[in-house]
Amino acid sequence: MIQAKGYAAQDPQTNLAPWDFARREVGPHDVQFDILYCGVCHSDLHQIKNDWFPGIFPMVPGHEIVGRVIKVGDHVKNFKVGDLAGTGCMVDSCQECENCKKDLEQYCLEGNTGTYNSMERDGSSPTYGGYSNTIVVREEFVLHISDKLPLAAVAPLLCAGITTYSPLRHWKVGKGHKLAVLGLGGLGHMAVKFGVAFGADVTILSTSPNKEADAKKLGAHHFVVTSDEEQLNAVKGSFDFILDTVSAPHDFNLYLSLLRTDGTMICVGVPPEPAQIAAFSLLGGRKSLAGSGIGGIAETQEMLDFCAENNIVSEIEMIDIKDIQTAYDRMTKGDVRYRFVIDMATL
Amino acid sequence: MIQAKGYAAQDPQTNLAPWDFARREVGPHDVQFDILYCGVCHSDLHQIKNDWFPGIFPMVPGHEIVGRVIKVGDHVKNFKVGDLAGTGCMVDSCQECENCKKDLEQYCLEGNTGTYNSMERDGSSPTYGGYSNTIVVREEFVLHISDKLPLAAVAPLLCAGITTYSPLRHWKVGKGHKLAVLGLGGLGHMAVKFGVAFGADVTILSTSPNKEADAKKLGAHHFVVTSDEEQLNAVKGSFDFILDTVSAPHDFNLYLSLLRTDGTMICVGVPPEPAQIAAFSLLGGRKSLAGSGIGGIAETQEMLDFCAENNIVSEIEMIDIKDIQTAYDRMTKGDVRYRFVIDMATL
Repeated sequence: MIQAKGYAAQDPQTNLAPWDFARREVGPHDVQFDILYCGVCHSDLHQIKNDWFPGIFPMVPGHEIVGRVIKVGDHVKNFKVGDLAGTGCMVDSCQECENCKKDLEQYCLEGNTGTYNSMERDGSSPTYGGYSNTIVVREEFVLHISDKLPLAAVAPLLCAGITTYSPLRHWKVGKGHKLAVLGLGGLGHMAVKFGVAFGADVTILSTSPNKEADAKKLGAHHFVVTSDEEQLNAVKGSFDFILDTVSAPHDFNLYLSLLRTDGTMICVGVPPEPAQIAAFSLLGGRKSLAGSGIGGIAETQEMLDFCAENNIVSEIEMIDIKDIQTAYDRMTKGDVRYRFVIDMATL
Repeated sequence: MIQAKGYAAQDPQTNLAPWDFARREVGPHDVQFDILYCGVCHSDLHQIKNDWFPGIFPMVPGHEIVGRVIKVGDHVKNFKVGDLAGTGCMVDSCQECENCKKDLEQYCLEGNTGTYNSMERDGSSPTYGGYSNTIVVREEFVLHISDKLPLAAVAPLLCAGITTYSPLRHWKVGKGHKLAVLGLGGLGHMAVKFGVAFGADVTILSTSPNKEADAKKLGAHHFVVTSDEEQLNAVKGSFDFILDTVSAPHDFNLYLSLLRTDGTMICVGVPPEPAQIAAFSLLGGRKSLAGSGIGGIAETQEMLDFCAENNIVSEIEMIDIKDIQTAYDRMTKGDVRYRFVIDMATL
């Protein structure tokens, strides 16, 4: 086994702390890379706190991982020692079901293997994430990372990036579309960058008036403060798409009323309580409420390549790993612009 | 004014009773037709009871109306005295907005004019529906009815028919699709007939095991009793579309779990309480929950023509208008196969 070190939660009540653990040896189809940077996703905190389902502890969070390859298995074809590499939310899937064969490993019918808080395909070996110094991943789930972009700012593309890129591509959002992005956080700010890059007319819907200058700097064409009734009324029935990145409880019927006829609201956030949807919110204009989860591996590579070509990265605040709890506290208050990234050299 | 007679609710607490009222004179663009049959829709009862919004009383319900033209205005081009004619849920719209111009009068941005419990475009003249002997409707909202089909069984096509036809056409449901129809009532039984006619593989999801024989007679290929966990598990993740016709409270997350990846559940019923949708029900398979309301006038005519060509009508139980309260009581218990139609000769 490979000795690894990282930060782990021993249970949902305890703060993260240093923890030594073992990773599997590099198998014939595996890539080992040393982790240079790891993004901090709100879902890290949700999972540590058992907000969604009972977690597997000790838990090493982190699924926005970039680094440099230090070892490859005998049968690995696409990576060599010294390459930049990345891994997102998945490290494996059945690779045989209908969805896996269609490059939709995120919807693997047998369930994909999460990068952490999940079990390997053997059903008994827990996975450990990117708040650590090194990781071993099978080749098919390792992404190529361009050296053209600042590496730390690439890390969040592996979750916040693909989670917003994938639905915008799937629903073919682009020129001639009015796109609203609900929530200007880690996901929302990436949605703005992609929406603008794809040619859509992008509006930020935010509770925070003080984010307007940032929104414009990110490229958004319009900014609507959702607590201002007059501003909201002015955009009723106007959007083709709303990309809803909010994980806090919110009024879905209000936002559905901002869609035009045949409009679609796409949810990528996971609020703690079910959405309450009045039938007339959908019937009165043939509207849709949809969901989308991350993206497949091929699409994640496509997104990374698109970002390299178009000079798109996440806005980040770099932190030392010892400050992770402070980062969680600030993230919970929405006080981050727009993604914390751990400098793993501080481990 | 034209003297008309019908059955009206004087308020939400009182049973329907005979009522004499006035309709406008036939204007240059109007068609007057004597009503021969009128279907009884569950929404008639919802509206009388103020279930959805405060109603306009006295209220003459009924929006599945067929009859024979007795007078046409000077500028009417497409109808003549003696023609069969029908009117559904709308009698007018602004006819100028983006949606009206796209033949989506049901989504008129200024609001369509309901056949009853609504105000004419003047904003002050209440509309009265089909539980009456005669009606005056502007030509654009009068449908041509084929004489090839039994007329009484055509009446429910004007609401139950178009409400199910329109979404199946919009989402292009047909060959190669697995379609589930949730609820085998007035709408559900029409959805089965259309789904089968369009070439889909049709499953009825019903709480009533005793409807299985009927479902097969209507053409459904499969029947699943939703209270039987084993039967439900066998169809998890299997449907491309679910057409949800249920107006009673039900578990949306359960039914969403029966959709395959990228599947769509289309709601045409209006339950009294908001649907509770867990985020993972949509995210875990890029699923959509959509709504659809009746259909436009051109599409309603298309549907009626399709029915005439393909010999499709509603299954009905004919009633005398004096028995309307009994019909409502039976309808509330789901005890109707599958639509009550009032023989207006009994008025």
